[in-house]
Amino acid sequence: MRAQSVVAFGGGHGLHASLTALRLLVDDLTVDDLTAVVTVADDGGSSGRLRGEFGVLPPGDLRMALAALCGNDTWDVTWSRVLQHRFEGAGEMRGHVVGNLLIVSLWELLGDHVQALDWVGRLLGAKGRVLPMALTPMVITAEVAGLTPDDPDARVTVRGQVEVATTEGRITSIGLEPADPTVCPESVAAVHAADWLVLGPGSWFTSVIPHLMIPALREAIVTSDARLVVVLNLEEQPGETIGLGPGDHLATLIEHAPDLKPYAVLADRRSVGADADTLAATVAAYGARLVLDDVMVDDGSPRHDPAKLAAAYARIFADS
Amino acid sequence: MRAQSVVAFGGGHGLHASLTALRLLVDDLTVDDLTAVVTVADDGGSSGRLRGEFGVLPPGDLRMALAALCGNDTWDVTWSRVLQHRFEGAGEMRGHVVGNLLIVSLWELLGDHVQALDWVGRLLGAKGRVLPMALTPMVITAEVAGLTPDDPDARVTVRGQVEVATTEGRITSIGLEPADPTVCPESVAAVHAADWLVLGPGSWFTSVIPHLMIPALREAIVTSDARLVVVLNLEEQPGETIGLGPGDHLATLIEHAPDLKPYAVLADRRSVGADADTLAATVAAYGARLVLDDVMVDDGSPRHDPAKLAAAYARIFADS
Repeated sequence: MRAQSVVAFGGGHGLHASLTALRLLVDDLTVDDLTAVVTVADDGGSSGRLRGEFGVLPPGDLRMALAALCGNDTWDVTWSRVLQHRFEGAGEMRGHVVGNLLIVSLWELLGDHVQALDWVGRLLGAKGRVLPMALTPMVITAEVAGLTPDDPDARVTVRGQVEVATTEGRITSIGLEPADPTVCPESVAAVHAADWLVLGPGSWFTSVIPHLMIPALREAIVTSDARLVVVLNLEEQPGETIGLGPGDHLATLIEHAPDLKPYAVLADRRSVGADADTLAATVAAYGARLVLDDVMVDDGSPRHDPAKLAAAYARIFADS
Repeated sequence: MRAQSVVAFGGGHGLHASLTALRLLVDDLTVDDLTAVVTVADDGGSSGRLRGEFGVLPPGDLRMALAALCGNDTWDVTWSRVLQHRFEGAGEMRGHVVGNLLIVSLWELLGDHVQALDWVGRLLGAKGRVLPMALTPMVITAEVAGLTPDDPDARVTVRGQVEVATTEGRITSIGLEPADPTVCPESVAAVHAADWLVLGPGSWFTSVIPHLMIPALREAIVTSDARLVVVLNLEEQPGETIGLGPGDHLATLIEHAPDLKPYAVLADRRSVGADADTLAATVAAYGARLVLDDVMVDDGSPRHDPAKLAAAYARIFADS
């Protein structure tokens, strides 16, 4: 098999896990071109403060993706640790992350989002490229049911990633503002050039689905010749997906992008458990193949094991 | 002449000017070993905020010295610009400088001041090493006359670099707290290994003389076989040295370290002007040689011209 070109979509810890696995496939030459396309809708923490102060894209998820791709030598690892360093204490810097400040300063200096991220990538010896899903800071909105005690079907619109990710109601759909942001041309080009697109794992409504809400990016995803792998989470996520089984996750995704045609759906066999039959039926209904594999860490905690996830990706890439 | 080993002492813009000149001598192989030893008593601006928040050495003067020594290629220059980037806007980051945050985070991560500065030096392709004058954050104190209207000879103690540098009185002497800080062994070793020590230019009481108030560092300076060049400023500095002529600068320096034996005193011919004879007498009285040279920028503003200052250093190093 020739080396594959892969674009992974997501944000936060889910994308970090996926990229940590995919960089292993760069090391063993299964993958020769790896691009992360990252959500830019965060409004919490250090990213939210910088976004509020400077009107920039939230840098945190981009920073985490860069750190996941960092090279193996002492230089790369040291600068990656610097990038990820979070200030403690009780003063004005508390909670800020050095890499976020570095990325924002490069944006200010170079006036170019992609060039700036490429500079940080070179600093870390990154084994792939990190790009934003759009060049406009985005606001996630969610339609949420269950917040009106006397009318359980009433929908309330919740705004902002932090609010959406922590709502006590049930999210029925999400949207992005502005509806038609400035696209990142390099992200669209990467999707068209890819052999594989990997969507998920991660916070389903706030890190995974948002990519499908950028019109130009969704258009690229559905028209690309690349095969799409949807990677399901290992458990329900409080605030976002309580009550949603594995098949519901997939169905929710497709509801937001009905023309999406997944090639494969990857799920962990143990975490799916008794839901396997329902999931298989849902996956088949969308014309995709279900891949049940062992991708969870051995201690049973709901985290992806990078080596196992890499092996699962490699099997999917090879078996096509 | 074999290549020379040089240690330059100072802080802020004065040291930046001296290092910008000395790195030209690294380029032309006149100097093969260059070390900057930097004051750590700043309590203003971004440095002062970080010092107050984290109890660390003030990083600003160290950062400026590193930037002055940065290499010539695009990589070095870009990271140097990042290092020097100051946030604007109206929020909590306003006034903070990225390099200061980077240095503090490396101190926190590595737990070693010198290793951390070496990492930043490698990032910039620095043509020399930057070290702190001590490993303890210092407080400058000054005895100041002229602050008591009805008793012009009364002395008031002023504390802190910002207060000292902006006092409306006349500084008669300075001190440092704590009186016997933790020494930086690498700085002491560099002084002993040097052919030349360069003291000044810079804020006389707050960036130049403080080096002589660190007992272990002064001891190294006076016992080293290296020859000491004192570089005088181009004009009086409001708040610090109004009313002090070039000879008074030298005398004040020696008052703070009576066992100091300068080999040469370098001054700009135009800026000394009619004070040349008085200065020559003072320099001779301390057993040093006066070097009057042209080291100022051509437009007449009181700034050192890097190429001219480099040429003046080279003539002193060669003519010995």
